[in-house]
Amino acid sequence: MIRAVSTDPVPIAQALIRCPSVTPADEGALDVVQRLLEPLGFDCTRLVFGPEDYRVDNLFARRGGEGPHVCYCGHTDVVPPGNLAAWTDDPFAGVVRDGVLYGRGACDMKGGIAAFVAGLADYLAVHPGHRGSISLLITGDEEARSVDGTARVLEWMAANGHIPDMALVGEPTSRSTLGDTIKIGRRGSLNAHITVTGVQGHSAYPAKADNPIHRLVAALGPLLAAPLDNGSDFFPPTTLQVTGFDVGNTATNVIPAVAKAMLNIRFNNHHTSAALTERLHAALRAAGCSYDLVAECSGESFLTRPGPFVDALSRAIERSTGVVPALDTGGGTSDARFIARYCPVAEFGAVGATLHQVNESAPVDELRRLAGTYREVLAELLG
Amino acid sequence: MIRAVSTDPVPIAQALIRCPSVTPADEGALDVVQRLLEPLGFDCTRLVFGPEDYRVDNLFARRGGEGPHVCYCGHTDVVPPGNLAAWTDDPFAGVVRDGVLYGRGACDMKGGIAAFVAGLADYLAVHPGHRGSISLLITGDEEARSVDGTARVLEWMAANGHIPDMALVGEPTSRSTLGDTIKIGRRGSLNAHITVTGVQGHSAYPAKADNPIHRLVAALGPLLAAPLDNGSDFFPPTTLQVTGFDVGNTATNVIPAVAKAMLNIRFNNHHTSAALTERLHAALRAAGCSYDLVAECSGESFLTRPGPFVDALSRAIERSTGVVPALDTGGGTSDARFIARYCPVAEFGAVGATLHQVNESAPVDELRRLAGTYREVLAELLG
Repeated sequence: MIRAVSTDPVPIAQALIRCPSVTPADEGALDVVQRLLEPLGFDCTRLVFGPEDYRVDNLFARRGGEGPHVCYCGHTDVVPPGNLAAWTDDPFAGVVRDGVLYGRGACDMKGGIAAFVAGLADYLAVHPGHRGSISLLITGDEEARSVDGTARVLEWMAANGHIPDMALVGEPTSRSTLGDTIKIGRRGSLNAHITVTGVQGHSAYPAKADNPIHRLVAALGPLLAAPLDNGSDFFPPTTLQVTGFDVGNTATNVIPAVAKAMLNIRFNNHHTSAALTERLHAALRAAGCSYDLVAECSGESFLTRPGPFVDALSRAIERSTGVVPALDTGGGTSDARFIARYCPVAEFGAVGATLHQVNESAPVDELRRLAGTYREVLAELLG
Repeated sequence: MIRAVSTDPVPIAQALIRCPSVTPADEGALDVVQRLLEPLGFDCTRLVFGPEDYRVDNLFARRGGEGPHVCYCGHTDVVPPGNLAAWTDDPFAGVVRDGVLYGRGACDMKGGIAAFVAGLADYLAVHPGHRGSISLLITGDEEARSVDGTARVLEWMAANGHIPDMALVGEPTSRSTLGDTIKIGRRGSLNAHITVTGVQGHSAYPAKADNPIHRLVAALGPLLAAPLDNGSDFFPPTTLQVTGFDVGNTATNVIPAVAKAMLNIRFNNHHTSAALTERLHAALRAAGCSYDLVAECSGESFLTRPGPFVDALSRAIERSTGVVPALDTGGGTSDARFIARYCPVAEFGAVGATLHQVNESAPVDELRRLAGTYREVLAELLG
């Protein structure tokens, strides 16, 4: 069912792994990609952003100027290897043993980029005159700050007429079998830091004090008593977790002056961070709190509803892998949250079983099948 | 209205203040009392209790063996003077200036003991053949631990046939005018330390974790939502104050494993510490908490209902001071909580305006009037 690709993604993945691009370092990783794309006819632009002490390199490459414009998005930065002694091999050696490629980034997501470039090369060999255009947005700032990477490149793309019609993020989305899962959305994430100020006093005379712990419990109780929603077509229910509650008082007979809480909300497409923040304000006001609230949204929720793009992606994956992909919105945040502001975006890639782990790996066979699948995706989208 | 006493309490109070008996030290204070009581016909017993590093001296003195047996209770230990530079005089000099006696313990409660001994001497001079018997329980362990003082002396008294029929604690109970307040009860105080254990996890996947903050908020919410009672004839409503709530987590996306709370309950005669502790257990169980609860009662509530003893005390005070005393149960705990287990107990003494403060003081005139009032109390109780 899966046609072999003539371009092997494995040496590409090895070349990428051998660049120790622990976020936000590049160490030559983007050059590896650029040197493969230029002979394929891509115009490559390097975009360096970020402060002096956190320079980030990014690559935007585009072939053709017509629509429809399909953009593949990924990142060459990786998380640190962690305890080196726990690794069987050098995490930056790209060792292949018993049909498995080992190394930091093998599945998240240097292996994915290698598979896309290999599948792209094959696709272009067969379809040199395809309709539309193809681009790649490869960043070095995804794993940590995510400030000077995809978000900034998209701003540049918008300013330069490069906003695509659809985007495919190559994160390892498959759960147990290649092709079993496409992500068509992600939950949003909101952090809130709450400080409630009361009036200190003696616990024997509470009428002369104002207990900020009582106010905070009264504010949080209703927020925790019932779910914020019951989920939606593609999302589980929104969750609100109070992850901190601290006072720092050691005297049992003293009513403290200040109580602090922190919480994290993972929200589906029923909510925006602004509406949730207002809900927190309302709960604090209802409990009569004198408070300070700092809310930070690390990503709004987004959903790319099933339609031509997602349908085409699903068809190509099924044709290539024999698996009907499930449409999923689970997991944490990804750079797709930035792209969703501009165009339909979906995520599809390898099985992420060893993502961020010691001895991160990708089966060689899976990388080659993924390359073939990406080739089929391009064929489905651009003929 | 107030008859002068022929024995002056002021030099007695000065002698006591000049013993720097910062709790639990004695520094000769009990000897001052004992040397005054022995010539008046009291059998004096010194009772030393406590561990090697916290020795406490106590005095029990009794005159006569018949009933009714009236016991006066007090303490010669004092709180530390605090910032010596803030005192106008040496806190242990017992200076009298402009009709005011200054020094640590002047009102709490060396002045009170001096007034009782002076009033007692006068009473005995006039009523050498009074009915019943009189005793004094003077401890050196009231201000801090309260373990090896009144409670232990009462055990000894019980074992030796000295439990009185009524007891008068000489704490400074008057609010603004000598005689305006008798305490006939005190609230109890219960401290609880709660540790709720959950299951740590990622805030994005709360189904795989068990948030101990949520459980604790769910347990505390109902306890705080409604008063535990509406007060009683002589008591204000019971109060429950959560004085600590701590987690110590710094990562907003981590559900912590443990949350701790501490609380203080000041309870009236509707409750016992055992019943309140069970109520806490029930609230924690209802919230599904896996928890540890350590409850410590520093004093059960008690109430000496108005009756012959309180009525006689009130009559004597009114006759002596011209003020009708209010029957009160406010304030913190006192040694009366130990005595209430054995016999009716009430508290009456000077105005406590400067209690525990820098430049603690007692007006000389008030000490003399208090001595006269104590003499009238004895006359009322024993004829």
